[in-house]
Amino acid sequence: MNFRELYNKLLNENITADKELPFQVERISFKKGDILTAYGAVEPNVYFLHSGIVELKIKSYVSEKILDFFFTNEVVTCLTSFLLQQPSDVEMTAIADGEAEFFTYHGIQQAYATGSLQVNKLGRILTEQAYLRKAQREKDFLSKTAEERYGEMFEFHKDYLLQIPVNKIAKYLGVHPESLSRIRKKLNS
Amino acid sequence: MNFRELYNKLLNENITADKELPFQVERISFKKGDILTAYGAVEPNVYFLHSGIVELKIKSYVSEKILDFFFTNEVVTCLTSFLLQQPSDVEMTAIADGEAEFFTYHGIQQAYATGSLQVNKLGRILTEQAYLRKAQREKDFLSKTAEERYGEMFEFHKDYLLQIPVNKIAKYLGVHPESLSRIRKKLNS
Repeated sequence: MNFRELYNKLLNENITADKELPFQVERISFKKGDILTAYGAVEPNVYFLHSGIVELKIKSYVSEKILDFFFTNEVVTCLTSFLLQQPSDVEMTAIADGEAEFFTYHGIQQAYATGSLQVNKLGRILTEQAYLRKAQREKDFLSKTAEERYGEMFEFHKDYLLQIPVNKIAKYLGVHPESLSRIRKKLNS
Repeated sequence: MNFRELYNKLLNENITADKELPFQVERISFKKGDILTAYGAVEPNVYFLHSGIVELKIKSYVSEKILDFFFTNEVVTCLTSFLLQQPSDVEMTAIADGEAEFFTYHGIQQAYATGSLQVNKLGRILTEQAYLRKAQREKDFLSKTAEERYGEMFEFHKDYLLQIPVNKIAKYLGVHPESLSRIRKKLNS
């Protein structure tokens, strides 16, 4: 899927490839290890991933935590920083080479302001999806064990799991790498 | 503030009291202990609080957690259930008598669908605010101690704190009531 197809799908539109979207969308490619948004930077973009894996990290008072992983056909940004245009507490890093399309804060704000109904609707739907994802993550963290959460990652993102270092998966689940090894052995047996 | 004033403020509008908003807004009053949305119910409404205090709770695998408290002039709903129109994992309860205005899922969806730019913009802004609040709460939980978080509640919601039972504040902070007593003594000394 490309961003135009996502736009059409979310808004029941039918904008063909020869027509322009109401705001500019550009392409970017990134390498494993690239920092897309550093701690303290103001997030300028919203990305739609064509390939690759992106992680969002935050510094806790004990260590660094991984908030979420994003895969192909998912939308990712440091959303608080993007919405408020303030320095980010969250860092976005590529953990596998990939490509993405992106639009800028300036571009979408201009489209909001010129009164585009469809762009406001798109902004509403994308923000709703970001909220639902964060609320689901919070709920999973409170109501599921690390083993159940790993089981779901395994079920839904099996192909990607091999590309994510074990210590990152452990940081995401909030367990020690040794506990994750036990969980993995149990699941594979 | 009433909901019309909130609407005008968020959208730079100037709809006077004798004119109608693009969707219906009704009034409700509630008593301490009233369950506004029960576990398993589908959330029909979004509330704008005139007075009173509302809590959102979720069942974790060890106990029940309090996700957030909402006060005068704040917007509250079980948002995941509202957006998906699915049974709620979150329960909304009044912990102090109060009054609110509310609009319904059906009402706002109709206004979205009839292509109101302003209502889509309102939905986008309210969802952005809900996201920012949840992200801030997650960040605070990871990066601040219970003492710091209680200090901020004390600073920003001093007048309300007396109305919230100590065991609820402890549940919200994620500490034992005894630890909260120590924090309170330290802060008052």
